[in-house]
Amino acid sequence: MEINVVQKVLKVNDELAQQVRERLRAAGVVAVNLISAPGSGKTTLLESVIPLLRDDLRLGVIEGDPETTRDAERIARHGVPVTQINTAGGCHLEANLVLQALDRFDLKALDVLAIENVGNMVCPVGFDLGETKRVAVVSTPEGHDKPAKYPKLFRQTDLVVLNKIDLLPHMDFDEAVFDRDLKELNPDVQLLRVSCRTGEGLDGWADWFRRLSEAGEAAEASA
Amino acid sequence: MEINVVQKVLKVNDELAQQVRERLRAAGVVAVNLISAPGSGKTTLLESVIPLLRDDLRLGVIEGDPETTRDAERIARHGVPVTQINTAGGCHLEANLVLQALDRFDLKALDVLAIENVGNMVCPVGFDLGETKRVAVVSTPEGHDKPAKYPKLFRQTDLVVLNKIDLLPHMDFDEAVFDRDLKELNPDVQLLRVSCRTGEGLDGWADWFRRLSEAGEAAEASA
Repeated sequence: MEINVVQKVLKVNDELAQQVRERLRAAGVVAVNLISAPGSGKTTLLESVIPLLRDDLRLGVIEGDPETTRDAERIARHGVPVTQINTAGGCHLEANLVLQALDRFDLKALDVLAIENVGNMVCPVGFDLGETKRVAVVSTPEGHDKPAKYPKLFRQTDLVVLNKIDLLPHMDFDEAVFDRDLKELNPDVQLLRVSCRTGEGLDGWADWFRRLSEAGEAAEASA
Repeated sequence: MEINVVQKVLKVNDELAQQVRERLRAAGVVAVNLISAPGSGKTTLLESVIPLLRDDLRLGVIEGDPETTRDAERIARHGVPVTQINTAGGCHLEANLVLQALDRFDLKALDVLAIENVGNMVCPVGFDLGETKRVAVVSTPEGHDKPAKYPKLFRQTDLVVLNKIDLLPHMDFDEAVFDRDLKELNPDVQLLRVSCRTGEGLDGWADWFRRLSEAGEAAEASA
């Protein structure tokens, strides 16, 4: 009986995610769903890439958090349209919240919408938000065992960003084990190694957004 | 209707948590529920304290993870009785799982049972496991904003362990903001600053377990 209830909610979520997808497609916007543990650096990754993309792409950001508007305030300082979703303690974003947030944007004025999910490696994975691509962020201090321990997230992602690589000299993070476990779960996944502190890898992160947007435009032109 | 289902599950959980509590009390065991984000270092904190307590306390450990027995294997190497709970992707431990795990221990041969919850700062908070004390672990790379962003966890904890303080020189962690936000949420909470890498603060962490066990014995004697 409990399982039935969960399935029902997921079914509704999938329908609403489809509505998000259609609205974004109609406006020519590609969307990215960023999922990670709390404190992996999702907001900082967005803050770091915004200046690099300023001349090429028009970005919008949805921030998901259980409480506070701190992350939205950080993004707003960069002059990028942003909407904060507070889940009132909820552990993941759902499509109905994203659908409501879309009303706060002028979608025609955006190329890319980045959706920062609630910090959680488990619950957000099961909820399609209507995104074009999913990005899993994991930071080096969390340890190289994260793909093996949270396989669903790493199986269902298009890109993995290994963040805070500047801290590697100060900890026991076995990159060979991380890479091997990740490849086993998701042989085709792309991996970017990034440090927002030193700037290493940020160009690749910006390029990833540019290619995503170009692919979105090509798909739109051929539709 | 969804809310009714959730309430029902929580009610069942509270009843089962009470059963856990009674079985532990009858055996003279105090239990600790460790909650944190993935990769905060809960397992390493246990591995670090086990050798320090070997002569004083008989420890047992329950490891909660969505997948793998890696953490239980790490604990077992220290010669401590351990049971792994795999939640099959589930995002938190519930009392019924702990109750089943208790059967795997000789409770009369334990003083302290450490229960390492699934890595998640949101979902485990609502589920009483029958623990004596709750410990929130947060590591410095996660950022000083965690208490403000995940207030429920920090409001409902007896102890906060700030882990990986050896990394403080390499990052922008504002301890004053962290302390202020934490005190605002939970004025009486105890805070331990620890590094498992340098050993700083581990004596205090071991003492916390010793005092907890002594308090449990005193309560038992007066009962």
